[in-house]
Amino acid sequence: MKKPVILITNDDGVHAPGLRYLIETMRPLGNVVVIAPDKPQSAMGHAVTIQSPLRIHTITKSASYSEYSCNGTPADCVKLGEKVILRGKPNLIVSGINHGSNASINILYSGTMAAVIEGAMENVPAIGFSLNDYTHNADFSHCGKIITSLATQVLDKGMPDGICLNVNIPAMNGIPISGIRVTRQAKAFWKENFDERIDPHQRDYYWLQGEFITTDTDDDNDYWAINNNYVSVVPVQIDLTAHHMISEIKNWKLEF
Amino acid sequence: MKKPVILITNDDGVHAPGLRYLIETMRPLGNVVVIAPDKPQSAMGHAVTIQSPLRIHTITKSASYSEYSCNGTPADCVKLGEKVILRGKPNLIVSGINHGSNASINILYSGTMAAVIEGAMENVPAIGFSLNDYTHNADFSHCGKIITSLATQVLDKGMPDGICLNVNIPAMNGIPISGIRVTRQAKAFWKENFDERIDPHQRDYYWLQGEFITTDTDDDNDYWAINNNYVSVVPVQIDLTAHHMISEIKNWKLEF
Repeated sequence: MKKPVILITNDDGVHAPGLRYLIETMRPLGNVVVIAPDKPQSAMGHAVTIQSPLRIHTITKSASYSEYSCNGTPADCVKLGEKVILRGKPNLIVSGINHGSNASINILYSGTMAAVIEGAMENVPAIGFSLNDYTHNADFSHCGKIITSLATQVLDKGMPDGICLNVNIPAMNGIPISGIRVTRQAKAFWKENFDERIDPHQRDYYWLQGEFITTDTDDDNDYWAINNNYVSVVPVQIDLTAHHMISEIKNWKLEF
Repeated sequence: MKKPVILITNDDGVHAPGLRYLIETMRPLGNVVVIAPDKPQSAMGHAVTIQSPLRIHTITKSASYSEYSCNGTPADCVKLGEKVILRGKPNLIVSGINHGSNASINILYSGTMAAVIEGAMENVPAIGFSLNDYTHNADFSHCGKIITSLATQVLDKGMPDGICLNVNIPAMNGIPISGIRVTRQAKAFWKENFDERIDPHQRDYYWLQGEFITTDTDDDNDYWAINNNYVSVVPVQIDLTAHHMISEIKNWKLEF
C-alpha cells in the first residue's frame, strides 16, 4: 500500500520542540515533508508574503522524510510545500504542536491554525495541534497517542471541503487525560492594555499585554475542555458568513 | 446630541487614496479618529505585533478629527486606537476603503477585514469597505452614498456581539450601481503557483502568483454580487465552529 504523504508545519519555527515532537509522532504514519518558518511566527494570523520573495532552505531530503525551512509565514509554508516541494497535494497537513493554547478566539490570531485553514481552503484534510503550555521546554509526552489517534481517523475518513480541526491538549499535569471532547469555539475575549514606556531618546513605545477572559460557562466549549483535563476537538469552517443574520439585514433600509 | 466616535483604519497604509476617501465620507457622521499603518499591510491577515514594540506618530489632533499612524498591523491599529488614543471603545469602526475586493475567502487574508473582525471580538460595531479595483488611482466617487447609508444604519441599529460586516463595492464602470445585496461568502479558491527565479548569486527565490477561481454559480453570494454591479454586504461572525460537524465527529472512534 502506498504510504500517505503528510505535510507538517508550525508557527513557532523549525527549531521548536513542539514541531520536533510532532514530526516524531507522524513519521510512522506516512512519508513526511516538513516545511516550517525559519523564525517564530506566532500571532501572525493568516498573513501571506506577497511583497517580498520567498526562499527555501533544504535541511534534509529523502523519499520517506524531507525537511525544509523558509522565510515565510505558516500559510506560506503550506503554499510552498504544495506548489514547490511536493508539486501536488499531500494527504494530510498537520500543524504544531503549538506552544500555547489556540482555543476560543485565539484561532483568529494563530499562525498554527492559519496553516490548517489554508489546507481547508485547498480541500486538504488538516489538523492543528496546540498544547496548553506556553513554555519552550513544555512536556509533550502525553500528546503522542492523542495525535496518532486523530491523524489516523482523518487519514481514514478525510474531511469535508472547507473544514479542518482545531485540537487543543491540556498541559501535562501528572493526571491522565480524561478523554477527548468534540466542542465549539468558546466565547471569550482578551482584556488588553499597552505597557507604555519611554525609550532613552524620550520617545514613547508600547507593548501589548492582556488577560484572557471567558464568560462562557457551558461545558461544550474548547476552553472548558482543556481546563477540565479533556482534549478539545473543534471542527472549523472557512465560511465566516453569519447566515442567521442575512434575513435580518435584508430588512434594513439600505438606500443610496 | 453627542456625536458618535468613529475609529477608521485600513491595510493599504495611511497615505492610501481609499483611506482618504473614507475619512472624508465619515467626517459628517461623527468625531473621527484615524489610526492607520505607516506602510502597506495587505495580506497581513489577523497578525498582531507581540515581539516588537509599537510606536504611534501623531499627524493631527482636535476634538472632531485626529489622525495617527503606527508601525503595526490593522489589528494593532484597532487595539492602539481603543487602548491608547481613545482610552475607550468607539461607537463604530470602519476599515478601508480597500484597494481590491475582499469578497469570498479573501476575507481570511485581509488586513482590512482583520481590523473589522477585531472590532467584532470586542463587541464594537464594525464595517469593512472594499472596492473591486486594485489600482492606486481607483475611482471611489460612487462609494460615498453607499458607505454613508450603511454606516448610518449600523450607528442606529448596532450589531450583535461577535458580528461585523464585509462590504464589497463594484469598480466604477460608468453604469449606476444596481443595488445592495445581503449575501454569503462565495465558495472559491486561489489557483496558485510560484514564479521561480534565480538571483545574481545563483540562489532560488519564489514569488507567489495566482488566479481567483469560483465555481459558485448561485446568485446569493458576494462574488456574484460585485460582478453583477451590486454592492455586497456579508454579515461575518467570529465563531469559526462548523457546528453541523460536531455530531458527526462525535461518532469517530477516538481512543488513545
